[in-house]
Amino acid sequence: MQMPSGVHALVRRTHEERVMRALQENGAMSRGEIARVVGLSRTTLSEITGNLLQRGAIVVVDTDASRREGSGRPAERLALDPASAQFMGVDFGHRRVHVVVADASHEIMVSGSVRYEDTATWKTRTELALELVDRLSSEAGVHYGALQGIGIGVPGPYPAPEGAAWPRATAGTTVLRPAPEGVDVAFAERFDAPVIVDNNTRLAALAEAISGADSVADLVYVRLSDGVGGGLVVGGQLVTGSSGLAGELGHVTVEPAGRPCRCGKRGCLETVASVPGILAACWEFGLRLENLDDLAAAVRRAHPVADRVLREAAGALGRVVGAATMMLNPAKVVIGGEITRLAPVLVEQVAATLAAEIFPTASAGPVVAAARLSDDDGAIGALAAVFHSSPLLARYPETAEVKGRSDAPDSATEGAAHVRP
Amino acid sequence: MQMPSGVHALVRRTHEERVMRALQENGAMSRGEIARVVGLSRTTLSEITGNLLQRGAIVVVDTDASRREGSGRPAERLALDPASAQFMGVDFGHRRVHVVVADASHEIMVSGSVRYEDTATWKTRTELALELVDRLSSEAGVHYGALQGIGIGVPGPYPAPEGAAWPRATAGTTVLRPAPEGVDVAFAERFDAPVIVDNNTRLAALAEAISGADSVADLVYVRLSDGVGGGLVVGGQLVTGSSGLAGELGHVTVEPAGRPCRCGKRGCLETVASVPGILAACWEFGLRLENLDDLAAAVRRAHPVADRVLREAAGALGRVVGAATMMLNPAKVVIGGEITRLAPVLVEQVAATLAAEIFPTASAGPVVAAARLSDDDGAIGALAAVFHSSPLLARYPETAEVKGRSDAPDSATEGAAHVRP
Repeated sequence: MQMPSGVHALVRRTHEERVMRALQENGAMSRGEIARVVGLSRTTLSEITGNLLQRGAIVVVDTDASRREGSGRPAERLALDPASAQFMGVDFGHRRVHVVVADASHEIMVSGSVRYEDTATWKTRTELALELVDRLSSEAGVHYGALQGIGIGVPGPYPAPEGAAWPRATAGTTVLRPAPEGVDVAFAERFDAPVIVDNNTRLAALAEAISGADSVADLVYVRLSDGVGGGLVVGGQLVTGSSGLAGELGHVTVEPAGRPCRCGKRGCLETVASVPGILAACWEFGLRLENLDDLAAAVRRAHPVADRVLREAAGALGRVVGAATMMLNPAKVVIGGEITRLAPVLVEQVAATLAAEIFPTASAGPVVAAARLSDDDGAIGALAAVFHSSPLLARYPETAEVKGRSDAPDSATEGAAHVRP
Repeated sequence: MQMPSGVHALVRRTHEERVMRALQENGAMSRGEIARVVGLSRTTLSEITGNLLQRGAIVVVDTDASRREGSGRPAERLALDPASAQFMGVDFGHRRVHVVVADASHEIMVSGSVRYEDTATWKTRTELALELVDRLSSEAGVHYGALQGIGIGVPGPYPAPEGAAWPRATAGTTVLRPAPEGVDVAFAERFDAPVIVDNNTRLAALAEAISGADSVADLVYVRLSDGVGGGLVVGGQLVTGSSGLAGELGHVTVEPAGRPCRCGKRGCLETVASVPGILAACWEFGLRLENLDDLAAAVRRAHPVADRVLREAAGALGRVVGAATMMLNPAKVVIGGEITRLAPVLVEQVAATLAAEIFPTASAGPVVAAARLSDDDGAIGALAAVFHSSPLLARYPETAEVKGRSDAPDSATEGAAHVRP
C-alpha cells in the first residue's frame, strides 16, 4: 500500500524523534538497548540509526566491550554527538551548592561544590554558584559554549506561597516553581540558556526513577526530613500538576482530628511521619529524644517506644503510598531521608502496610525500597530533569543566542568526582 | 552562533513533530491556536507550518469564518490531510456497541450503534460490531483504506484477574488491558491496524479532559455505578501504570474496618460510594430503596436518610479525591455515573469535602464538576485514545499492510449523528 502523506510523515518523524529523545534521556546506548527502549524491531531501528548517522545527527562513541559480560561480539554504542551540547545541574542545599556539567552523551565533564552559611542570602548563594561554575570550567579547561539547558534544584518552597499557577520567569526560561530571589534569572542571563527550577525532592524522585540499570517509568517518592516531601514519576515524566503543586504526599490527611500542621490543616502525614513529628510522638510516650542521633541510638537498643512510634509513622505513610499505588500503579515506591538509613523498620513497615492496602494479588505490588541516592545527590536530579525535559528543548530556539562567556577567577574546588547519572 | 548538529536537529524535528502531534490530537486548528497549544511564537510557527504545507504533510482545510465572533479577518485552519487516514472508536457496553470513524482532521465520517442482549457472548458482540462497521461504510459510501488505529472500550475487567502485567496481544496490536475473548485480535486482523483496548472508564476520563473548549491536561475522573471506577489524565496523557492497573480510586481504603469489598479487601471507597453501596447504607438506616429510580424519588422528596447517606458517600469520595489532588494537582475533578445527575448533592458534597482536604489556599483547588459526556459517549473516548496515543502511531509500521476490505451486507443502522469529539 501507499502510505498516506500526512500520517506517514508523522510516523517516520516520530520514529527518528523517539530514537534521538532516547539518546538525549539515557546517554550512549547500543542499538539493542535503543530498540528495547523505543519499542522498535532491530530491522526498523537499523534503518533509522543508519539514516541519523549519515546525517551526523548521532555518532558512534565506543563499544560496550568493557561493560559487557560473556564473549559475544562487542556492540557499538551510539549517542548524540557529545561535543554538540552541554547540560548543567545545580543543587542548592541549606549549606552548600553542588554543580555538575555533562555533555550530550551524558558523560560528566566537571563537578564540584562550595559551602556557605545557612544564613547566606540567595544573592550570595547565586554568586558563589556562578563563581564555582567558572572555576570548574577554568580548572578542567572545558567550555560551556553550547549549553542547552540548566536544571536548578532548590529547597521546596513551603507551603505553596500563593497557591496558584506559578509565574514563568523571563522569556526563555521555563520555571516550574518560583525560584528564590531570581536565581533562575541569574543563570538564564549568565548563560542565555533555558532554566528549569524545581524543588530538590521532585528532582530526587526523577533521579531515583532513572538511576541504575533497573530504571522505572512509574515511581512514587517520599522523603522524610524536617517535613515530608514527595515526587511522582508517571509514564517516565516528572509530574508537576496543573499549577506546579503535585507531589505533596506529606499533606494528605491521615488523622482528621490530628495535630495542627504548619500548612494550616490538621493531621497531615507530615505531622506524624516527619522527623520532628516522630520525635514529638516519642516525647508524648515519655521517650525524650532531641535529634536524629538520639533516635538512632534508641533504635539500636530496640527501645519499644521508638519502635512503636516509627511503626505508626510508617503505617500512616504506608496508607498514603497505598492510596497512591491504587491510583498510579507504580513499579517502585522509594522512601528517602537520612532517617530511613538509621531506622530500617520504617521501610519494612511501609512495605507491610502497603501490601494490605492494595489488591490482594501480591504480584501487582510495587517494590518498596530506601532511596539509592543520598540527599547530597540533588545535582544529578537537576541534570536528569534537563535531559528529560522535552518542553525545555522544544522551547530553546525561542531564546536569544548564546552570549560570550566571561572568564572567572581561579580557586579551590571541592570534590570533582565523575559520576554517571 | 552555529547550532550543534545533534541537538539542533533534535530541536527542529521536535518542533515539527509537536505541530503535527497537536493536529493529530486536536484536529483542525488555526495558526494562532497551534502556536498557543505548542508554545511557540507566531514567527517560529509560521516557518514550521510553511515548511510542512510545502511538503504536503499538512493542508489548509477551511477558514474559521463560520465559527469566529467579531469582524477580524478569518484565519485559515490547518490539519493533517483529512483523506490521509481514518481512525475508529468502538465502545462495548453491557447491551450495545457504538462505533465512530473519523478522518485525520477529526471530522466524524460515520457513526452508529447496534444492540445486543446482555447475555450475548463476546464472539457475538464482536461479530455484530464488525457487521456494523461494514454497514456504516456501505451506507455512507466511505472506505477505511487508510485506517491508522482502532480504540476499543470495554467494561472494566474487575478486579484485575491476574494482577500482573497485561499481555500484549498479537504483533501490531497495543493492548493496555486484556481484551475479552479476542475482540482486539478480531479487529486487528480484520483491519490490520493497531488496536488499543482500555476500559470505558479510563477512556471516559480522557474524553472528559479533552472535550469542550476548556480542555485540561490534568484531570481526576471517578464514575459511580455498580462499582466505582476511575481514570487519571496527567500531563495530557492517560495514566496506565506499570502494569495497566492505574486509576483504581474505587479501591482506596476509606474505612479500615468497613464492609468487605468484592476485591478481597475491606472498606474500599466502592463499598460506600457505589450505587449498591449507597442503597445498602439506606437500608441499614431503614430506607428501603430497590434501585436508582427509588433513590431519585427519595432525593426529590428530600428524605433525610437519603441525604445523609449520599453526603457520607460523597465525603468518603471527597477524601479520596482530596488525596489524589494533593498528589497530582489536577485542574479538574469530574464525577460521572447516572447517579450524579439524579443526586446533585453528591458533587456539591465532594467539592465541600475536597476543599477541606487540600492546602487552605482556595485558589489552588481544582474545579469539581459532574461529567459532561454521558455513559453512552464511550466511543468518543476510544477515538480520543487513538488520537492521543503516540506509542500506537510510533509502532504502526511494525504491522503488516492493510488488507483488502470485504464488502458487507446492507441493513438498518441506528443514530448516525455527526459529532466532534
